Amino acid sequence: MSVTAPLGFRAAGVAAGIKAGGSRDLALVVNDGPSRAAAGVFTANRVKAAPVLWSQQVLSGGRLRAVVLNSGGANACTGPEGFQDTHTTAEKVAEALEDSAGEIAVCSTGLIGERLPMDALLSGVETAAGQLSRDGGLAAADAIRTTDTVSKISFKRAAGYMVGGMAKGAGMLAPALATMLCVITTDADLTSDELDTVLRRATSTTFDRLDTDGCMSTNDTVLLLASGASGVRPDLAEFEQKVTEVCADLARQLLVDAEGATKAIAIEVVGAASEDDAVKVGRVVARSNLLKCAIHGEDPNWGRVLAAVGTTDAVFEPDRLNVAINGIWICRGGAVGDDRSKVDMRPRDVTITIDLSAGPHTATVHTTDLTADYVHENSAYSS
Amino acid sequence: MSVTAPLGFRAAGVAAGIKAGGSRDLALVVNDGPSRAAAGVFTANRVKAAPVLWSQQVLSGGRLRAVVLNSGGANACTGPEGFQDTHTTAEKVAEALEDSAGEIAVCSTGLIGERLPMDALLSGVETAAGQLSRDGGLAAADAIRTTDTVSKISFKRAAGYMVGGMAKGAGMLAPALATMLCVITTDADLTSDELDTVLRRATSTTFDRLDTDGCMSTNDTVLLLASGASGVRPDLAEFEQKVTEVCADLARQLLVDAEGATKAIAIEVVGAASEDDAVKVGRVVARSNLLKCAIHGEDPNWGRVLAAVGTTDAVFEPDRLNVAINGIWICRGGAVGDDRSKVDMRPRDVTITIDLSAGPHTATVHTTDLTADYVHENSAYSS
Repeated sequence: MSVTAPLGFRAAGVAAGIKAGGSRDLALVVNDGPSRAAAGVFTANRVKAAPVLWSQQVLSGGRLRAVVLNSGGANACTGPEGFQDTHTTAEKVAEALEDSAGEIAVCSTGLIGERLPMDALLSGVETAAGQLSRDGGLAAADAIRTTDTVSKISFKRAAGYMVGGMAKGAGMLAPALATMLCVITTDADLTSDELDTVLRRATSTTFDRLDTDGCMSTNDTVLLLASGASGVRPDLAEFEQKVTEVCADLARQLLVDAEGATKAIAIEVVGAASEDDAVKVGRVVARSNLLKCAIHGEDPNWGRVLAAVGTTDAVFEPDRLNVAINGIWICRGGAVGDDRSKVDMRPRDVTITIDLSAGPHTATVHTTDLTADYVHENSAYSS
Repeated sequence: MSVTAPLGFRAAGVAAGIKAGGSRDLALVVNDGPSRAAAGVFTANRVKAAPVLWSQQVLSGGRLRAVVLNSGGANACTGPEGFQDTHTTAEKVAEALEDSAGEIAVCSTGLIGERLPMDALLSGVETAAGQLSRDGGLAAADAIRTTDTVSKISFKRAAGYMVGGMAKGAGMLAPALATMLCVITTDADLTSDELDTVLRRATSTTFDRLDTDGCMSTNDTVLLLASGASGVRPDLAEFEQKVTEVCADLARQLLVDAEGATKAIAIEVVGAASEDDAVKVGRVVARSNLLKCAIHGEDPNWGRVLAAVGTTDAVFEPDRLNVAINGIWICRGGAVGDDRSKVDMRPRDVTITIDLSAGPHTATVHTTDLTADYVHENSAYSS
């Protein structure tokens, strides 16, 4: 159902010839209203791709008529010409919809440092505009895939309205977002300020706590568009919960599709003096290549967990740290705990629980194992 | 020549039976004076192994008679019992040398979270004490190897005195040191304060700028011992230069022996507003798994360099960043520069130059590529 599950949205996904292989590579999502309220969150990377700079500017108005997304090229580090390409793309969409380019967001994903093939892209925009439909959500989700092995979509029903979404991303998932593009739609009626607040809160505990390889993209974008077509003014808490559920569902799909991964690892930090401490510890552990290799080898190597925790400035005493892997407390008081042979490392899902014994706060960060396949996927070709 | 190159030092390396395979696993380095001045730098990890806690305490006195080192077990995260094991080891060395345990440093390396086989270790100390000799430096360097494929030794001659050293380390090399143990000796005559100043400065630009996998060990230790046996009071600037050369030589040996690496990558940051900025940028780039995979695949992927630089708060403007790989400026002004096909990626040594265009400061951080062999070495067995 994807982004066209809620009323008021049409979408299309076409093969514009941007990707070499001839698969779908251009998606268009259009909000037919009556409302055009929208919000967005973007990569925290200071090196931002042209479409990010453009869409941030567009979103300052709080309204979006449409989003055009392409795979096959990130249009990052392409200078003023790259920014002009983004602008031209938005103008082309505006022309097709007889609307203003100032309310068209642009998202791109693919290789950094190369100009987009604009002839193919612009003619793809025309084709996509001609194919817009109420059931185009799946084709749109398919068109934004890069190394994704599957399309990622989600939707949730609420009292009189719906929330739908699509995402792409299979690597470079990191805090403050990841190489991921995500469009979330709803037919509920909200202001852009309300959408902004909800989106920031929802992403901060979902996409922002996904860290598969510690790298941060130049292109990450999450957009939330509200058509108001259901006529329902939602309860804000319920709406936030639904958006968070869609984000969490998509984040989980990104995680299990991470490049080369064989394990989905949840790093659950408990007993922290603050939520910040818990997130900080979770992230550092999620980025330990040594630990990620150990989990790949099904080795419950708690020493590598402690070595990572010890590099943070979180509040804890080394001799009060406890670590469980898949429920077995193999490290107690900073030293050997229960018998490590009791840990069942075979399941795909691995939970590492770290008790800092320093307070009541908790956070969970999600990552994957580090595998020879990850190395292969990221060394065998440019991406 | 190793640690016994300078006058006043004897050493030994024996197979004590700590490692399963029967190879050398215990080293002893003894300073016969007349001076016992010494200094040490230790891991910045807050989770410190028992021998680190012990040796830090010993070094507070500024004197060392001997250093005992074992491979086959890190004695980290072993609780009060582990600390007692370290203490017992120092006492055993003191007994063999008819000296005080308060001037015996202890270093351990190997798996975290397991007690050492003390019977084997203590009898190994006796054997080693009986084999101490002026040419024992090579055997000592051999005995501290873990996954090292070769022994690492170095020595430099100066005006009337020498500086010698040995080190172990082949992974987990990270800022604020790494899983590395290093003992440096000299027959020059210096105070412990002088040694401390020189050692901190020498390690800050050598071992501290080596970052092969971003992980930081619980056991890192670098010790500097001066016997004064040459009777020479050295020029301090010359002495610092010699110690720095030995550290740089050993650091280079650690780098090229890093687990699974096929490339030695120098990240040379120029045009930085401060040296701190230069080091910060160098480190972040050195830790980008995506970039390290690209270099492994001989892909001069400057986009991944920019994506990493963009995650720092160093002073720079994205559109003034320049990047050269092996001398070809393939990124100029934050966008495509010279033809990337001109970059020769075949040599083992790869230099990535990042010009922040923000000031006169520079720093170089060294790392390696990320390979399937690294994953294999760190997932196939506990270490």
